[in-house]
Amino acid sequence: MPRFFMAGSNFKGGTAIIRGRDAEHVRVLRLRPGEDVVICDGEGTDYKCRLVYADKEQAEAEVIEVVRCPAEPSVKVTVLCGLPKGDRSDYIIQKCVEAGAFEIQFFSSSRCVAKPENLEKKLERWQRIAEEAAKQSGRGIIPQVGWAGELAGALDIAVKKELGLFMYETGEREALNAVLDGQKGIETAAIVTGPEGGFAEFEAKLARICGLHVCSMGERILRCETAPVVALTAMMYATGNLS
Amino acid sequence: MPRFFMAGSNFKGGTAIIRGRDAEHVRVLRLRPGEDVVICDGEGTDYKCRLVYADKEQAEAEVIEVVRCPAEPSVKVTVLCGLPKGDRSDYIIQKCVEAGAFEIQFFSSSRCVAKPENLEKKLERWQRIAEEAAKQSGRGIIPQVGWAGELAGALDIAVKKELGLFMYETGEREALNAVLDGQKGIETAAIVTGPEGGFAEFEAKLARICGLHVCSMGERILRCETAPVVALTAMMYATGNLS
Repeated sequence: MPRFFMAGSNFKGGTAIIRGRDAEHVRVLRLRPGEDVVICDGEGTDYKCRLVYADKEQAEAEVIEVVRCPAEPSVKVTVLCGLPKGDRSDYIIQKCVEAGAFEIQFFSSSRCVAKPENLEKKLERWQRIAEEAAKQSGRGIIPQVGWAGELAGALDIAVKKELGLFMYETGEREALNAVLDGQKGIETAAIVTGPEGGFAEFEAKLARICGLHVCSMGERILRCETAPVVALTAMMYATGNLS
Repeated sequence: MPRFFMAGSNFKGGTAIIRGRDAEHVRVLRLRPGEDVVICDGEGTDYKCRLVYADKEQAEAEVIEVVRCPAEPSVKVTVLCGLPKGDRSDYIIQKCVEAGAFEIQFFSSSRCVAKPENLEKKLERWQRIAEEAAKQSGRGIIPQVGWAGELAGALDIAVKKELGLFMYETGEREALNAVLDGQKGIETAAIVTGPEGGFAEFEAKLARICGLHVCSMGERILRCETAPVVALTAMMYATGNLS
């Protein structure tokens, strides 16, 4: 079923008024009165609607049913990633939105090669990627993409969550299973992953001091764009959000 | 540590003779006598070696230690994917090798848009992608990439494994957690995922009749190149291979 987020739409007495970009989308999809669409308020609620009218500028749909979007996980996971080179950030956003991330933030750390230049433009583009992926995968929210500044800023965000994981490739680490076991009921979590060159030892030490779980994902070395998706998927599985 | 697979190398009385492409690789990396490398036999055994000699054509390394490659999972997972369009197959191969797949096979099914053309050339290229990803992620084998023919061929491969999962988006399905719980000791498994348009109902029915577990991965709709990575990661997590 075609899916729209609320932008430019209004609900008035059981009728959804679809305007702007979404009205254009209705036209592009050649949707006709009588066809069903889902309008999502971007906060996890789905309005199942039937189109009653559509012209070039505007469309109207009758609300048939209001439900909690079934695609939203029970845990809000903030994914924090060391800024990677090239289009790897695009990939991280698309895949993490599909896999159920609540929000995605990038940060710079000691081994980042990519420079945080043109951030405003980048954030705009990243947000569009998140929106597309949210529509495509049937999410009930559009995960926000942000910039957390330096590693310290990312750690500050992570420690405020109920469970914070810091993925690290060497040295003393906790097993991911051990950390995630019995965490089914958590409502917020954070996953921190590094850029291409990973984290320096002092960065992992800092994360540990801050109270994050410095975790291993086994002996296979994951690319910086693969690690967040794998860690997020493990968390979704462990919290019962992959069934 | 630089990592080589056996191709063109020989072990003779505690000395590894490195020839061909690998000798070239030694040269490109500017490795000098005294430096350590890992030579993997491609069957899960790592030979930690120290370079004693290197010229344009050949290099020699002394074997210091022989160990089982720690990156190899305890379960051999065959990933079977409906042939996707464009470079999505490349992506599936790279990420599934990183995530620990034993082998990857593509097949054609009723909703495949991509045509299995120039298969010989494609298989060659796919195998190179698998080799690169295996080296990069520190695998002990080079996962083989193959062509399983039509869906029936893929199902025939899957049913021979101890546990066979068929990922399906609608209708009656088992929860992934329920199927994977208590499967820690399995040695072989298969994961079957569909092409862009997913599977037709009769295909899911056929899979069920064959004895595969028709599984759900939740209400989020995953792209055809994301689904195998997510399913494989869940399996790795559930079997204790992500710690």
